[in-house]
Amino acid sequence: MPADKIKPLERMFYPASVAVVGASSSAAETGWVKRLLDFGYKGKIYPVNPKVREIRGLTAYANISDAPDPVDYAILNVPARAAPQALRDCVAKGVKFVHCYSAGFGEDGSEEGKRLESEIVRIITGTGTRLLGPNCMGIYCPESGMTFGDDFPKAEGRIAVVSQSGAEASRLVLLCRDVNLFFSKVISYGNAADLDAPDFLEYLAMDKKTGIIAVYVEGVKDAPAFMSAVRKCRAKKPVIILRAGTTENGARAALYHTASVTRSEETWDTFFKQTGAIPALTTDETADIVQGLSRIRKMNGRRVAIVGRGGGIGVVATDICERAGLKVPPFSKETQAKLHEIRPDAGAGLRNPVEPKLGMEGATEFYLRGLPIIDMDTETDIILIQMAVDIYGGSGADLKQTLTESAYALCAASDSIRKPLAVALFTGGRAETVLAAAAARDILTKAGIAVFPAVESAARAISKIPITKS
Amino acid sequence: MPADKIKPLERMFYPASVAVVGASSSAAETGWVKRLLDFGYKGKIYPVNPKVREIRGLTAYANISDAPDPVDYAILNVPARAAPQALRDCVAKGVKFVHCYSAGFGEDGSEEGKRLESEIVRIITGTGTRLLGPNCMGIYCPESGMTFGDDFPKAEGRIAVVSQSGAEASRLVLLCRDVNLFFSKVISYGNAADLDAPDFLEYLAMDKKTGIIAVYVEGVKDAPAFMSAVRKCRAKKPVIILRAGTTENGARAALYHTASVTRSEETWDTFFKQTGAIPALTTDETADIVQGLSRIRKMNGRRVAIVGRGGGIGVVATDICERAGLKVPPFSKETQAKLHEIRPDAGAGLRNPVEPKLGMEGATEFYLRGLPIIDMDTETDIILIQMAVDIYGGSGADLKQTLTESAYALCAASDSIRKPLAVALFTGGRAETVLAAAAARDILTKAGIAVFPAVESAARAISKIPITKS
Repeated sequence: MPADKIKPLERMFYPASVAVVGASSSAAETGWVKRLLDFGYKGKIYPVNPKVREIRGLTAYANISDAPDPVDYAILNVPARAAPQALRDCVAKGVKFVHCYSAGFGEDGSEEGKRLESEIVRIITGTGTRLLGPNCMGIYCPESGMTFGDDFPKAEGRIAVVSQSGAEASRLVLLCRDVNLFFSKVISYGNAADLDAPDFLEYLAMDKKTGIIAVYVEGVKDAPAFMSAVRKCRAKKPVIILRAGTTENGARAALYHTASVTRSEETWDTFFKQTGAIPALTTDETADIVQGLSRIRKMNGRRVAIVGRGGGIGVVATDICERAGLKVPPFSKETQAKLHEIRPDAGAGLRNPVEPKLGMEGATEFYLRGLPIIDMDTETDIILIQMAVDIYGGSGADLKQTLTESAYALCAASDSIRKPLAVALFTGGRAETVLAAAAARDILTKAGIAVFPAVESAARAISKIPITKS
Repeated sequence: MPADKIKPLERMFYPASVAVVGASSSAAETGWVKRLLDFGYKGKIYPVNPKVREIRGLTAYANISDAPDPVDYAILNVPARAAPQALRDCVAKGVKFVHCYSAGFGEDGSEEGKRLESEIVRIITGTGTRLLGPNCMGIYCPESGMTFGDDFPKAEGRIAVVSQSGAEASRLVLLCRDVNLFFSKVISYGNAADLDAPDFLEYLAMDKKTGIIAVYVEGVKDAPAFMSAVRKCRAKKPVIILRAGTTENGARAALYHTASVTRSEETWDTFFKQTGAIPALTTDETADIVQGLSRIRKMNGRRVAIVGRGGGIGVVATDICERAGLKVPPFSKETQAKLHEIRPDAGAGLRNPVEPKLGMEGATEFYLRGLPIIDMDTETDIILIQMAVDIYGGSGADLKQTLTESAYALCAASDSIRKPLAVALFTGGRAETVLAAAAARDILTKAGIAVFPAVESAARAISKIPITKS
C-alpha cells in the first residue's frame, strides 16, 4: 500500500532524464538547461530546440521524439498556444511527467486560455503521462539535483513545500536558507490542471526524507481528497498551511493568478480544527513556524521567560507574547533569589522579563550564569532571548567580535539547559550591524537554535508549536 | 499664553550649560561628558567629580556649587542613595533642570526605592528646579547638541518623541535614521516623578520645530492633563501613542520598569476615539506610522494599487492589505486597456495587483511607463510597490547596480505622479542582497519616498494615515 502510493510520483522528484522542450539557445540567458547543469543535476538532459544542434555542450533535438532514451520528466518552455502539440509529442514519447512552465492558460482570464487548459488536460487523460502545472515553476529536490531557483541551496533538509505560487515557494526556500534550514522536496504546481495538492501530500506523508510540510494554497478543487491527504500527513508530521486569497480582493487576485476558486476564512477555520494543520497568513510567518517546529523541542507549556536588555523592550515584548496567546509570569521566588545572587545590583529587572548587564559582554555573562538558573524555574516553559543589537550591539569595530562571542556563549549555555530556547535578534537597517548580526545568526542557527527577526515573529511561531505532553 | 507655555521647558532642550554630577573619569568609558563633547554640544560643560581635577580637558569640580556660572541642566550620574544630596546641591545652585539618570527608585520594588523617590520629589517641591526622571535617558535634541545615544544622528528633523523607555526611544531614533527620518526633540522620562508626559506634550504642541509626535507610555498619572495635552497637540499635528503594559503581565513588567500603573486596552480605545491620536503596539509599528505620516501625502482613500512581480506575492499582499482595512479593487477598464497596450503579453497580471516584466529591468521599465497609467486610475488612491528583492533582485555582481537604477527610475516616476506612493522592499537575510537593498532604500527615502521592510508594515502604516478630504 505505501509502495503503491509512493511509486507514482517517485520519478517526478528523481527523474533519470529531463527534456527541456523549447530550450533556450542564448548563451547569456539563464534557461532551464543551464539551471540544471549549474545546480548539478546528474541525470541525462535532452535539450529540444529545432533551430540549433547543441546547447551548452549537449546535443539538441528537433523534437522530443528524437531523444535517444526514455524521458522521465519534460519541461515545456514554449508559448501556451504551442503547448498542446509539445504535450502530444511528450505523450507519444511516453514521458512520465510533464512540467508545463508556460503561463497563459486558465489563469489568463481569456476564453482561449481556458480552452487551452481543457485541451492539455484532454491530451493526457488516459495516458501514462501526468501533468504538473501549467503556470508553475516545477520541482526543487536538492537530493536529485532538480531545481527551479538559481540561488537555491544544494544542501538537503527535511522540509517539504507544496505551493501553487512559485514566488512564495522561492521566498520560503530563501528565508529558510538564511537560518540554515533546508529542503527535501519543493513543488510549485500552479493551476493544478492535473496533479494537485492531494497527490503531492499523499506522497510526502510517506516520504521518509520529509519531516515538516508547508503548503501554500489558493484553491482546493477536491476538498475531501485534500482533507484526507492532510490528515495522512498529520498522522506522521506537522503541516503548515498558508491559505491565500481569503479576502474579497485576495480571492479575485487568486482567480487571475492560478484560476483558483478560494474558500472563506470560516471554511478554513473549520478545516484547521478538524485536521490539526497549523494556519499561517504570510510566507514570513510560515518560515518562522517551520523554524519553530524544527528547533524548539519539548515545549511543555506556553509560559515564556524573557531575557534581554531594555526595560521598555521587555514590557513591549511581554505585551507581544501575551497578545500572541503566551504568558510571561513572574519567576518563582527561588529563581528570583538565585538571580539576585548573581546580579545583586539589578533591582527590579529579575522578575521576568530579566535584564542582563549592559553591553554584549553583560549578555554573554548572563547566558552562562543566568540561563541555568532560569532553566530550573518552575513557572516558565521556554526561554526567549531578545537581542536588541540595533541599540545594544555597540557601533565600534569590535561589534562583530563581541556579538560572535555572545552567540558562542549562548550556544554553550544552550547545550546545558533543558528548556527550549528561542532568540529574537533585531538589527535595524545599518549595514555593519546587519552583517554582524547575520554572522551571529549563522552561528546560532548552525547550533540548532531558533533565531527570529523580531519578538513578534518569535512569539507568533512559539504560539503555534504544539505542546509536548510530558 | 503660548510664550508662557513654551518658556518653562525651553532650557531643558536648549541649556546654555550642563553639569555632569558623578562624571566618569575613566578615559575608556563612554560617560556623559564624552558623549556630549563627541556629539557637539556647544554650551558649557561642568564635570562634577571630587576625585579628579580634569576630565577630557575640562576642569572638574568637587561639587556643583563650585561651578563658576549658572547651570541650566544637570545630569545626576550617582547611585540612587547619593541622589538626594546631589539634588539638594543642584537646588542650592539654582539648576533649572535636573535629569536623574540613576535607577533604583520607585521602579525598584523595594521600600527604600520608594522612599528615595518620595524624597527627591520633596527636595524640589516649591523650588525653581524641575526633575526629569529618575530612571531615564534624558534629552536628545540635535539642534542644541544634547544627546543620550552615542550613535544618534546629528541631522535635525521634525519628529518628537516622548517616551518612558530610553531603549524604545533609542530604537525609534535608529529605525527612523535607517530611512532618513530625523528628530526635533526626544525625551526619555522614566518614572516621571516630577515632569510628566503632559508637560512635554504641552511644549511640543507649540513647538514649531516639531511636526509629528510619537509617545511611548506605560502609566498615565494625571489622565485629564494627559488627554488635554494630547488634544492640544492634535489640533496642530499628528500624535502616535504606543501604550505599553496593557496585557496582564505587560502591566506587571511596567510596574517594575517605571513604577507605572498601566491602563486597560478598553480605556485606551476610548482615549484614541476621543483624541484622534493614532494607536501603535510596537516600536517598529510606530516607526512605520511616523514614516507614513512624513511621506505619504494627500491620500484620498484607502484603495490600493499593488505593483510588483510574483503572482502569489500579489495574492498574499492583497490579503494583507484587505485584512489591514484597505481595499485592492480591480482597476478601471480604461486603466486595464492602457496597461495592456504597454504589456500585451502580461495576461491576467494587469488587473491589480499588476506585474511588471521579469527582473529589475522589467520593474524599472514599468515604473516609467506603467505608473503614469495607474496614476490616472479612478478606482485606486495609493500605489504600493512591492519589491521582492530577495527572489527577484538576482544574485550577480550587478545586483546593486540594477537595483540602484530601479530606485532612480522610481524616484523619477514619483516626481510626475500625483497619487501617493509607498514601497515595500523585502530582502531576506543574505548580506549582498541586504546591502544592495539598503543602498536602494537610501536613494528612495532621500527622495522622500516611504520605504517599508514588508508589505505587512506598509499596509499597517497606510491604514493609519488620515484621509485627506479633497
